[in-house]
Amino acid sequence: MAEKLLKKKITGIGYETVVLDNGSIPLLAPMSEIAGRLSVFMANACLEPKNGGKGLLISGVPGVHDAKIAIIGGGIAGMNAAYIALGVGARVVIIDMNIDRLRYLDLVFHSRAETLISNSTNIEESVVSADIVIGSVLIPGAKAPKLVKEEHLSRMSRGSAFVDIAIDQGGCSETSRPTTHDHPMYVAHDVVHYCVTNMPGAVPRTATFALTNVTLPYIISIADKGAEKAMSRNNALLRGLNFYKGRLTHKEVAEALGIAYEEAEF
Amino acid sequence: MAEKLLKKKITGIGYETVVLDNGSIPLLAPMSEIAGRLSVFMANACLEPKNGGKGLLISGVPGVHDAKIAIIGGGIAGMNAAYIALGVGARVVIIDMNIDRLRYLDLVFHSRAETLISNSTNIEESVVSADIVIGSVLIPGAKAPKLVKEEHLSRMSRGSAFVDIAIDQGGCSETSRPTTHDHPMYVAHDVVHYCVTNMPGAVPRTATFALTNVTLPYIISIADKGAEKAMSRNNALLRGLNFYKGRLTHKEVAEALGIAYEEAEF
Amino acid sequence: MAEKLLKKKITGIGYETVVLDNGSIPLLAPMSEIAGRLSVFMANACLEPKNGGKGLLISGVPGVHDAKIAIIGGGIAGMNAAYIALGVGARVVIIDMNIDRLRYLDLVFHSRAETLISNSTNIEESVVSADIVIGSVLIPGAKAPKLVKEEHLSRMSRGSAFVDIAIDQGGCSETSRPTTHDHPMYVAHDVVHYCVTNMPGAVPRTATFALTNVTLPYIISIADKGAEKAMSRNNALLRGLNFYKGRLTHKEVAEALGIAYEEAEF
Amino acid sequence: MAEKLLKKKITGIGYETVVLDNGSIPLLAPMSEIAGRLSVFMANACLEPKNGGKGLLISGVPGVHDAKIAIIGGGIAGMNAAYIALGVGARVVIIDMNIDRLRYLDLVFHSRAETLISNSTNIEESVVSADIVIGSVLIPGAKAPKLVKEEHLSRMSRGSAFVDIAIDQGGCSETSRPTTHDHPMYVAHDVVHYCVTNMPGAVPRTATFALTNVTLPYIISIADKGAEKAMSRNNALLRGLNFYKGRLTHKEVAEALGIAYEEAEF
Amino acid sequence: MAEKLLKKKITGIGYETVVLDNGSIPLLAPMSEIAGRLSVFMANACLEPKNGGKGLLISGVPGVHDAKIAIIGGGIAGMNAAYIALGVGARVVIIDMNIDRLRYLDLVFHSRAETLISNSTNIEESVVSADIVIGSVLIPGAKAPKLVKEEHLSRMSRGSAFVDIAIDQGGCSETSRPTTHDHPMYVAHDVVHYCVTNMPGAVPRTATFALTNVTLPYIISIADKGAEKAMSRNNALLRGLNFYKGRLTHKEVAEALGIAYEEAEF
Amino acid sequence: MAEKLLKKKITGIGYETVVLDNGSIPLLAPMSEIAGRLSVFMANACLEPKNGGKGLLISGVPGVHDAKIAIIGGGIAGMNAAYIALGVGARVVIIDMNIDRLRYLDLVFHSRAETLISNSTNIEESVVSADIVIGSVLIPGAKAPKLVKEEHLSRMSRGSAFVDIAIDQGGCSETSRPTTHDHPMYVAHDVVHYCVTNMPGAVPRTATFALTNVTLPYIISIADKGAEKAMSRNNALLRGLNFYKGRLTHKEVAEALGIAYEEAEF
Repeated sequence: MAEKLLKKKITGIGYETVVLDNGSIPLLAPMSEIAGRLSVFMANACLEPKNGGKGLLISGVPGVHDAKIAIIGGGIAGMNAAYIALGVGARVVIIDMNIDRLRYLDLVFHSRAETLISNSTNIEESVVSADIVIGSVLIPGAKAPKLVKEEHLSRMSRGSAFVDIAIDQGGCSETSRPTTHDHPMYVAHDVVHYCVTNMPGAVPRTATFALTNVTLPYIISIADKGAEKAMSRNNALLRGLNFYKGRLTHKEVAEALGIAYEEAEF
Repeated sequence: MAEKLLKKKITGIGYETVVLDNGSIPLLAPMSEIAGRLSVFMANACLEPKNGGKGLLISGVPGVHDAKIAIIGGGIAGMNAAYIALGVGARVVIIDMNIDRLRYLDLVFHSRAETLISNSTNIEESVVSADIVIGSVLIPGAKAPKLVKEEHLSRMSRGSAFVDIAIDQGGCSETSRPTTHDHPMYVAHDVVHYCVTNMPGAVPRTATFALTNVTLPYIISIADKGAEKAMSRNNALLRGLNFYKGRLTHKEVAEALGIAYEEAEF
Repeated sequence: MAEKLLKKKITGIGYETVVLDNGSIPLLAPMSEIAGRLSVFMANACLEPKNGGKGLLISGVPGVHDAKIAIIGGGIAGMNAAYIALGVGARVVIIDMNIDRLRYLDLVFHSRAETLISNSTNIEESVVSADIVIGSVLIPGAKAPKLVKEEHLSRMSRGSAFVDIAIDQGGCSETSRPTTHDHPMYVAHDVVHYCVTNMPGAVPRTATFALTNVTLPYIISIADKGAEKAMSRNNALLRGLNFYKGRLTHKEVAEALGIAYEEAEF
Repeated sequence: MAEKLLKKKITGIGYETVVLDNGSIPLLAPMSEIAGRLSVFMANACLEPKNGGKGLLISGVPGVHDAKIAIIGGGIAGMNAAYIALGVGARVVIIDMNIDRLRYLDLVFHSRAETLISNSTNIEESVVSADIVIGSVLIPGAKAPKLVKEEHLSRMSRGSAFVDIAIDQGGCSETSRPTTHDHPMYVAHDVVHYCVTNMPGAVPRTATFALTNVTLPYIISIADKGAEKAMSRNNALLRGLNFYKGRLTHKEVAEALGIAYEEAEF
Repeated sequence: MAEKLLKKKITGIGYETVVLDNGSIPLLAPMSEIAGRLSVFMANACLEPKNGGKGLLISGVPGVHDAKIAIIGGGIAGMNAAYIALGVGARVVIIDMNIDRLRYLDLVFHSRAETLISNSTNIEESVVSADIVIGSVLIPGAKAPKLVKEEHLSRMSRGSAFVDIAIDQGGCSETSRPTTHDHPMYVAHDVVHYCVTNMPGAVPRTATFALTNVTLPYIISIADKGAEKAMSRNNALLRGLNFYKGRLTHKEVAEALGIAYEEAEF
Repeated sequence: MAEKLLKKKITGIGYETVVLDNGSIPLLAPMSEIAGRLSVFMANACLEPKNGGKGLLISGVPGVHDAKIAIIGGGIAGMNAAYIALGVGARVVIIDMNIDRLRYLDLVFHSRAETLISNSTNIEESVVSADIVIGSVLIPGAKAPKLVKEEHLSRMSRGSAFVDIAIDQGGCSETSRPTTHDHPMYVAHDVVHYCVTNMPGAVPRTATFALTNVTLPYIISIADKGAEKAMSRNNALLRGLNFYKGRLTHKEVAEALGIAYEEAEF
């Protein structure tokens, strides 16, 4: 594909390479929001016996235990997962390495979720005692660390669920492997795994609107001013330029494809 | 089965025939709670394109419309559906014919749900404009009224969802027909229907505990005192007696089966 | 004292014997509210190392575990304890034998507390894993059942806390023995016990107003109509009559004191 | 007035020209808060029939539709309007062009308000279906854009209400024209308009305290150090200097008045 | 009017005389809800200087005192007033003579309002220190007691507000006199009084739906069965019969009008 | 001690001298959180009569006044105090000099606390009318200002409580003097003072985890890279260096101890 883009001298800007000055990737943020919120619904499906689950309703009912959910990673995806999990009445633990983030989550959730600093003890104890683990360890532009260990996950009670939101970046459990919307789940160590890449594909209407909301300003700018002017006035857009007049103009992409990098000139 | 029970002179008490003095059925109440809470998760699954749905995430994300949910019937099941629907951030309308019930729901939900009196205009408008309709019109011991009309449901936007919690009592939509956990959904008038009978079967662990919580006191009483003494001290239990010493002792059951009713004597 | 009351022909009405038609004791209810709310503050004091506690702050802080609180008994006292415990951000489990009560608590607390039916498994698991147990099993006019077993309480982690609100009725733990405001705590099985009889005595100003609020209508009625007329128009007041014109007119009190019961006549 | 200030060599600092480094105007912020909160009360008055309104109570009552409110602009004024509108139990949609702002509002309001990105479709649909539109599109130092179109507003149902908080900057509807506290409302296209300039004038006590809270630190600084020293240590104050020793020292003001600008020297 | 109804032998059922077995008046309840909610909006209008008020915004803004509201009477109207007052961020005190009612309000409002037992000290202190007093002392079928004394109200700070929801039953302040929607307010003792009879008339659309919601079942019953059968099957309806075949059949109405009471026969 | 550290050429980094670029002290923040939350529990203990208090339960009970709490300083400690105080149902006023901070607190607490700008009138009125004053005026690295005046505190009602969280920095009341966990309270002007230095010492388990959460990243960095490299890559750590190879390398510490300051070289 890269060769064709080069040959046809296409001006190509990549969604995931549009990066703000502070390092965040604005065109991916809504996908994290959707995946985070969706993860709790998918976790509930994992718990159905027909999928291998223990037959637990996340929210429980009065008089009966509700589900314990451990959310590993309190970023955009994790916060949105926690928001839904708390909303349906589950017991929620959020683990993150950033104490200021935990303070913020404690405040906005009015202490409904327990917040714990990320360390191996807290992760192990939370994973082992959870009915549902949601892996939401997303590091922009990097492979997700394998914080959820096979040894711990295998000690979860039979029929528990694990949803790996970080699967697009390699997954955050040693037991994760990518799945599809058609065959979204598999069982490993008696734990039902949901590791669908591109989770927002399950809700394309919502995802399209969410994505359009954030891309439209860039597109309008290109349409109004032309690509070159738009990029020269907007660093984020400029960083996203991959192909220009027959040159591969993005260093990391060039490296990954083994094609020579050339600077864009305009 | 009835014949065998009669022949073997089994003392048989039917769960769904244990009725309190106020007409409520205590051993079915937890099933309504579970079905109500579960219905929102199932509605979200209905909205997935692979099931025929419009691809909408119930909770939406900031900047994008979330789902509009109309709950027809604000009893135990409907209240529990509303509780989950509000928890995940949907727009919720609850329709009920009992104004005092609506007042109670308005109070405990702090006006987060809009409450409307049940009449044909309110039902029609709410159904037609909803992304999700949850039918929770349950009348103890009676067939559910068909409040959701085919004509209205067919005007919902393409790919909407309908969950019929009342399906065990015949369903509350003209378009409902019973489905199973294996094939839970079907599409009619471009609306994805979920009409699984015995919905709590999807969460057997939670359902078992919930059911045991309410049956155990009766069982202990029978175990301690013997069935006869237990029934003579507890009208609800007595009403539930279907078979006793070779007699069919429950009028409605007798009628339904075309077997002669005889009074229990002990 | 009884003798003097009899000899002096005092008309004596006992607070704790004024009983409504539904069996509730209106003049004690505010005491249960106060004791319930106060119990969480006292539990926090129990956790201080200088009292033998494990040095845990009930509410925790972001990044650190907060306290797990098991409340045994979800009546007036237990509900008020849960209200404060949730307010300070603890993890709360409420155990009660009445499923309708648990449903009510689940609703009014918006599922912030986990509710569990009372059985030996649930009590054992909740007690053993809790940092704080609050015993609020109050049965009007009867001895509190010893639901908290020595065997379980002794398996709580070192420095945990137990507050027995039911101590006035004998206590609901096998390890409870009455204490005073001057020496409110003792350590048994490495668990700090707070078993002060008359807990509201710690907040006499609040307690006096609360008590006066409920007694004043009775007092005004007596002042306006005279005791006899007041009692003859109010069954609750009549039931509370212990002494009248030299007779001991309350059966249970008479029995307890070994004095002959005589009917009041006026 | 300018001439007199120049002639008398007054040192004049203008409230609305004190601007922080980040471009915000601290002495106007409390006015936006007040106008935002007040707007919902005024909208309710607009809905009274005696003012031309449809006779709707914003909060509705159980069983009856409550008001739908569309808030155009989610800045300080819009957020405060939403806070009151949600508090009285209305259905609220907030439209803003900044997706991060919508995320923040979604979080702090716990998804009680629906948030939508600003585009012509969302504005049109929200305006047309609303009972109340609140225009809170305020751009510091610029004319408000006319986001609410006459064509859309005229399709609102008869007796709806429109409150234009942006009227001080020209208004954000094509149908807005300034009104006074004495004659605050007029009807256009069957929609009751409230377009009072200086809305906080309706609550002078609250407004005075709010304004004093933010101006006092500047005043104290001037009183302590003298105007020159105070300004030289505080850029915001310096930017606010309009008149100094007979010179007009503020570019935009100079331009607007057609008087020569001169730099302040001290 | 009564004479004409008698002469024409009209069958007349009076809204306010339809009384349930428990003494409540179902066709007036929605009017209390509306008046209660509306009262807070009207109180805010009272506080505007152009009406004589002190210029206070009920909700205040950060950094500035918000309004203190004393609600005298925590029934339907008072609870609904409190719900709105809390929603807009005011400080609220509710006074009622029924301690169980206060407990309920404390629970459903999560202690956001302070609840106080009704006695002369609490009323005096609350009234004197309040910015707004809402009188909601409604006793079905009886004149409202004058709990708000002229002496206390006159000690409120200048420009305070008083809304008398009980004005239809004579008002609950010594200073109340009925007003109209056209001239709703007057100032007495420097306190702005809002004493409009038939408050719901300000929101006729909401009021009509609310009233229809509760009357329609009665009307359908009369339409279906005829008035006689409908009344003979429904005690509440029967109690509401004022005129029947030329007879005045309601004792209190007869007395009030000085017309002979005759029993209805059918 | 300093001499020994110098003589033994210890590399010494002081917790309270590790300062971020923005001037905040990350290793002390969790202590402020703990002290803030703990302060409300301690205030309740102060109100017990055995400690000299007025016998008030902070949370009150329905029908009875709850406590009025004035929190002077809305920083980390004050916000956490408010969070607990609101959670237990008290009336809370927060005073701070930063209007943006008050806006934030108003938002996250949903207006449950009244927020007031810091000035002498607001402090005086709030202190004098409060049952509990919590002093949480903490200025990083500086002596706390004496905002609570003896004259005002002495006008609080007999048996009120004052908790001084700022005591480690000299206290923020003219009446404060340091106390210990063994003798934590004293009475001055009939107000019970709690002025324990190192408040978190009352909950050592929570405090240790909280402190370790924030210190561990620094310690790991030192362990991995060696102290010199760790400091040269982390300004905050470098600022914290007090002793290095026999030199006193921290200016303020050197000054305070009267020892010559020398620059660290490595």
